[in-house]
Amino acid sequence: MKPVCLVIGAGAGIGGNVANRFAREGYHAVLCRRSDTGGLDRIVKEIDDTGGSASGHVLNIVEPDSLEGLVANVEAEVGPIEVAVYNLGAQIGTKALADTSYKAFEVGWKLGTFGLFRLASAVFPAMVSRGKGTLLVTSATAAMRGNAGQHSHTAAMGGRRMLCQSLNAEFSSQGIHVAHVIIDGAVDSPDTLGKMLGRQKFEALRKRQGMQHDGLILPAEVANTYYHLATQHRSAWTHEVDLRAHSDRPWWNH
Amino acid sequence: MKPVCLVIGAGAGIGGNVANRFAREGYHAVLCRRSDTGGLDRIVKEIDDTGGSASGHVLNIVEPDSLEGLVANVEAEVGPIEVAVYNLGAQIGTKALADTSYKAFEVGWKLGTFGLFRLASAVFPAMVSRGKGTLLVTSATAAMRGNAGQHSHTAAMGGRRMLCQSLNAEFSSQGIHVAHVIIDGAVDSPDTLGKMLGRQKFEALRKRQGMQHDGLILPAEVANTYYHLATQHRSAWTHEVDLRAHSDRPWWNH
Amino acid sequence: MKPVCLVIGAGAGIGGNVANRFAREGYHAVLCRRSDTGGLDRIVKEIDDTGGSASGHVLNIVEPDSLEGLVANVEAEVGPIEVAVYNLGAQIGTKALADTSYKAFEVGWKLGTFGLFRLASAVFPAMVSRGKGTLLVTSATAAMRGNAGQHSHTAAMGGRRMLCQSLNAEFSSQGIHVAHVIIDGAVDSPDTLGKMLGRQKFEALRKRQGMQHDGLILPAEVANTYYHLATQHRSAWTHEVDLRAHSDRPWWNH
Amino acid sequence: MKPVCLVIGAGAGIGGNVANRFAREGYHAVLCRRSDTGGLDRIVKEIDDTGGSASGHVLNIVEPDSLEGLVANVEAEVGPIEVAVYNLGAQIGTKALADTSYKAFEVGWKLGTFGLFRLASAVFPAMVSRGKGTLLVTSATAAMRGNAGQHSHTAAMGGRRMLCQSLNAEFSSQGIHVAHVIIDGAVDSPDTLGKMLGRQKFEALRKRQGMQHDGLILPAEVANTYYHLATQHRSAWTHEVDLRAHSDRPWWNH
Repeated sequence: MKPVCLVIGAGAGIGGNVANRFAREGYHAVLCRRSDTGGLDRIVKEIDDTGGSASGHVLNIVEPDSLEGLVANVEAEVGPIEVAVYNLGAQIGTKALADTSYKAFEVGWKLGTFGLFRLASAVFPAMVSRGKGTLLVTSATAAMRGNAGQHSHTAAMGGRRMLCQSLNAEFSSQGIHVAHVIIDGAVDSPDTLGKMLGRQKFEALRKRQGMQHDGLILPAEVANTYYHLATQHRSAWTHEVDLRAHSDRPWWNH
Repeated sequence: MKPVCLVIGAGAGIGGNVANRFAREGYHAVLCRRSDTGGLDRIVKEIDDTGGSASGHVLNIVEPDSLEGLVANVEAEVGPIEVAVYNLGAQIGTKALADTSYKAFEVGWKLGTFGLFRLASAVFPAMVSRGKGTLLVTSATAAMRGNAGQHSHTAAMGGRRMLCQSLNAEFSSQGIHVAHVIIDGAVDSPDTLGKMLGRQKFEALRKRQGMQHDGLILPAEVANTYYHLATQHRSAWTHEVDLRAHSDRPWWNH
Repeated sequence: MKPVCLVIGAGAGIGGNVANRFAREGYHAVLCRRSDTGGLDRIVKEIDDTGGSASGHVLNIVEPDSLEGLVANVEAEVGPIEVAVYNLGAQIGTKALADTSYKAFEVGWKLGTFGLFRLASAVFPAMVSRGKGTLLVTSATAAMRGNAGQHSHTAAMGGRRMLCQSLNAEFSSQGIHVAHVIIDGAVDSPDTLGKMLGRQKFEALRKRQGMQHDGLILPAEVANTYYHLATQHRSAWTHEVDLRAHSDRPWWNH
Repeated sequence: MKPVCLVIGAGAGIGGNVANRFAREGYHAVLCRRSDTGGLDRIVKEIDDTGGSASGHVLNIVEPDSLEGLVANVEAEVGPIEVAVYNLGAQIGTKALADTSYKAFEVGWKLGTFGLFRLASAVFPAMVSRGKGTLLVTSATAAMRGNAGQHSHTAAMGGRRMLCQSLNAEFSSQGIHVAHVIIDGAVDSPDTLGKMLGRQKFEALRKRQGMQHDGLILPAEVANTYYHLATQHRSAWTHEVDLRAHSDRPWWNH
């Protein structure tokens, strides 16, 4: 039975590439995303076609028991979750305070903070009983500093970062590696940036900034760092790491 | 008509002392707390007796429209809210992840993060129209770093800190001063620390650490810094400040 | 005998204004600056004329024993240094790495970091023996993040910030209050910004950004916060505080 | 001609292991340390014996032109320095302020901050002309927070961290990858920790904390992360990463 890498938020960007990377290394990848069965199937098939092992679930993790049920099911039916990846964003676009509804603020928290708490609560007991496990958390610039028009996003991500530190404080000595990965820039991802900008603007941005100059973060490259984190020896674990394009400025410089 | 200082979370600790301090400087203090009408009345009376002006409200701000109604009512009936103080804690005591219920985690967010978002949403439009206003936010060690047994608290406070930065980014140039005040240590407060520890332990702690050695943060002294922040000229505003007892170690040293 | 407020780096900006503010509160201000006897005399006279007490020293503190001799002399002849203010900048303008000489980098350290170490070494023994004292350290954006063209300045200021924390860790429980004040923006100061920009550009900037919109930090307002810090009760001391103009962006947003 | 990995500070700990790791990947490792020719020769021989390529230099980099001469010589005679590793510590042990001499404080700066500035000044021009290069900087807890008895060390490392950010700001878009690696705990290294503690205490610590529980950072494991950093694609570079033993607490929790 293969060890499982469970990816919550597995589109064609970081999530799908991380799933793919771990599958190449011998994990069974369980991919979970909210919608787009077709897109999900494509990634699963791509992994299968290259000799990897994967399965997919369309699931709205905001629903009660959704995430919890998935974790229980995977542990019972598929294999031990050795690596869990929380890759859900909570970006709702730039909105002034007056335009940020209570609902939007709450959804930000549900995806940005509470979902991670639920995943850790569901997946850590089995990891603790096995004495090992890895939780990789995709995070964002918004975890490091607030910004105009980002009320929901930064509150959610600030909570996410502190939660990662709290989880680390309780669980690292029990063998669970928690890493908070700051994705500090735009990712070349059709399923997130692509949908936010629209196809045309996205392709223009890719041409202008991305393809020739490596000015957009390539998710397949991010996946290499995720895999490296999961292979770190427990005498030298990373809790926090940042990633950005060489031609971009870090969050403290813009 | 006096300018109003609205204090959300006004017990016998920082909240009540801040209310008292601003009342002495000519503000009408509106005190709001969840329970203990008797305790609230005592603080209001104390302010009245020393020549100040104050009124009190027992209100569970978690309830929908509670905070929003209070703000609307004060602006309509009492006076312009020039200073709003968000002083609600979200500490639920030390709890392992397994003992932190979804409910507790959500309540932490409602008090720690969402309540501040609601207050800012309610009170900023009038401040913007007047071209000035101050929002003073009591925060905690937990906003700066996660820690074991603090999953709910640190997630809530991490969100609070980032939200303060986002509010500042949108509103400081419109004349609204947002300050995030890190209370980095135990406060000599019967209504919070006293209730958490129980009377006996609290009095023992006061004897051992507080009274002779000034090793507990005195809320009346904190109130001086809150008042100073509210008087800063807009050419030299503070967004973040920390406070702790001289004999205590800052969060980065323990 | 009046208590002394010793200001290292006392031009017409923050230093002179802080000296003036403490003099108004009953301190004897000892002002120290590297050059411009005329400018120094003007500030001393201004303090005298308004009923305060002050004296001035032209001194290049980079010289061996200069700072040390001054401190010994003041303690012996003038009065107990209750408040020491380290207000020397280390900004050498924007310079690419290739244009930053070893000499410039070293001077940055001598003014930015080493001078503070020397001041603390000289002034703390007497403060410890008296069981109280305050060290207020003017710092800068450059203490919080590096930036292009700021190699010397940020290295010096990063060292300054960490040194302040180390001093605080050893001395706060002995009654010495160390505060690191982040001046996060341009100061309306003829002796520093004025000299850096030249008179014409400086006056244009003042017209455009400063005078009507309070977009330059007014040093007299900064002095109010310095004085507040020195009056904080030891149960509620601030170690770090930031200051910027309301219309400016904080360092994490630009 | 092999690309060169130049390691400044190459003892039996992180430096030597990093040299070894890069040599295994096809680099020629140039090792530089202040003393112990025998120890240096052993590491070089070990690399040679396992099929790698290395050379060693005993050099006191504090001496003028030492580092600069080495860089020029390597570039001219050995090969292009593709990776430079600055691995000099500046820890002088726990010393109260009164016991920290000016000399000790200055040496801390020379090793901790200035040496890195000199290395970057010497090695970046060739890297820029080639459009690529990597500078990996070993750093420490002391770069993140001050602490009692650490005046020299934290000032030096605080400067180091800010300098890394300044170098990154100027050079990342020119293809030079600068990474600041926070070694946040004790390293199982005979040449540094071993010498500081003495052989007996060091071996006792290794037995108690290290070998069974992986409670000391293993330098060979650190070297894996250094190598990973050097292989990151320029669309996804890390500037800052922390490393500690799973059983240890991060700097913000102790």
